[in-house]
Amino acid sequence: MDQDNVIGVIGGMGPYAGLDLVEKIFDQTQAVTDQEHLPVALLSYPERIDDRSAFLFGRSQTNPALAIAAILRRLEGAGAVVAGMPCNTAHAAPIYGCILEDLARTGHRIRLLHLIEETVGFVRATWPELGRIGVLSTVAVHHFRLYRDALERAGLEAVVPEAAVREQVVNPAIFDPAFGIKAQGNPPTARARQNLLDAIQHVKAAGAEAVILGCTELPLAVPEPTVDGLPMIDPAVALARALIQATYPEKLRPLG
Amino acid sequence: MDQDNVIGVIGGMGPYAGLDLVEKIFDQTQAVTDQEHLPVALLSYPERIDDRSAFLFGRSQTNPALAIAAILRRLEGAGAVVAGMPCNTAHAAPIYGCILEDLARTGHRIRLLHLIEETVGFVRATWPELGRIGVLSTVAVHHFRLYRDALERAGLEAVVPEAAVREQVVNPAIFDPAFGIKAQGNPPTARARQNLLDAIQHVKAAGAEAVILGCTELPLAVPEPTVDGLPMIDPAVALARALIQATYPEKLRPLG
Repeated sequence: MDQDNVIGVIGGMGPYAGLDLVEKIFDQTQAVTDQEHLPVALLSYPERIDDRSAFLFGRSQTNPALAIAAILRRLEGAGAVVAGMPCNTAHAAPIYGCILEDLARTGHRIRLLHLIEETVGFVRATWPELGRIGVLSTVAVHHFRLYRDALERAGLEAVVPEAAVREQVVNPAIFDPAFGIKAQGNPPTARARQNLLDAIQHVKAAGAEAVILGCTELPLAVPEPTVDGLPMIDPAVALARALIQATYPEKLRPLG
Repeated sequence: MDQDNVIGVIGGMGPYAGLDLVEKIFDQTQAVTDQEHLPVALLSYPERIDDRSAFLFGRSQTNPALAIAAILRRLEGAGAVVAGMPCNTAHAAPIYGCILEDLARTGHRIRLLHLIEETVGFVRATWPELGRIGVLSTVAVHHFRLYRDALERAGLEAVVPEAAVREQVVNPAIFDPAFGIKAQGNPPTARARQNLLDAIQHVKAAGAEAVILGCTELPLAVPEPTVDGLPMIDPAVALARALIQATYPEKLRPLG
């Protein structure tokens, strides 16, 4: 137990998204035996982390950053040197910045990777020839410009759906209580999937050459690597690979 | 972060079995929102835990119990009050007993549930009318009589396959490098599944009224709840339910 070089995962936002990231870390590792797999710690404490959107939109005064920072300190105690957080919304600056400040204030050194920055870096490294990247996300992630700003900083053009498609096609595919993926995710409903395929065609028609599935629920309904020739980009895969690269780069499975 | 009543999971034996147990804890929880899910800590440190069978059969002098006990102390540090370990072989007395001794020696209070005892308890509580329980397992788990002794202590009869079936049908379905589930688990091969269906018919013909799938790999190839009228019992489900019962009994999903 001396050589600590553990990969940390902050779960609970939601619980299954935390599991999905851990599974992708295992899947992206070159390993044949149990012992060749990498050390991973998952702390899934959902009841401690208040709703991210409620805070960002002013419906709650509790910044979930403090609870997240406390979990990061626990991960450090379990040996983690780097961590990831599979929740797009928690990367909005009012939350993410406050996590980093709280860690610095308490003198902790665990490094928190940034899901959105890692996704954009993954797109550039994997498809250097592409310039116009579609983004499907919740209304909250759109509102806070998370993928748009990161893509633009990287010199890429973000292709987002028009307001009517964001609000009446993509968002219901995630949140609708009757057919949305949060309510019926295993398996997702045909209607949720069709909504997303329609939105993919919509951003393709607007010039997108690849599509970021910028909400942890979306890859459940669109699991295929390409749709109609466009690469589908799962941020959890990008984050999993970045976590391996940060700890055991020699174990990273080549992209295939 | 004050009220610690975390469920701990010792992963890494193998890594995907640890994930599977966490997923079953989530699945067996009554929860609609993220925040209603239970706090779970998974520490998957596979490189620290030496091969269980190698120690039990004298091919290695390193008892994996000490590494497992160290991980349990880490889980306690992350707030866990109870833990489970989804690896049948690690419950053989020379390992399991040594874990408990090491925890007692160092004054730690985290409670380690026993996968096999919980499985037998689950069988008795769920199907009180059944008396003869089939057991499919690795040769190692058979050799150490883990399920047989626990069933007999509970007043149940264990129905195990004959030696030829254990060694030439069940064990290859798990370990064969060409078609076994450890080598090809996602999805399992048709041959591995057929071997297991044959073994189920074999113990049914010998009088089994239900079958314990006593190796974490087996439910991957036989996921259905019943085969030819016989309940298939997944020890990970029994352990997941016992972990919830030990911490948040009011959140346990009723059996459906």
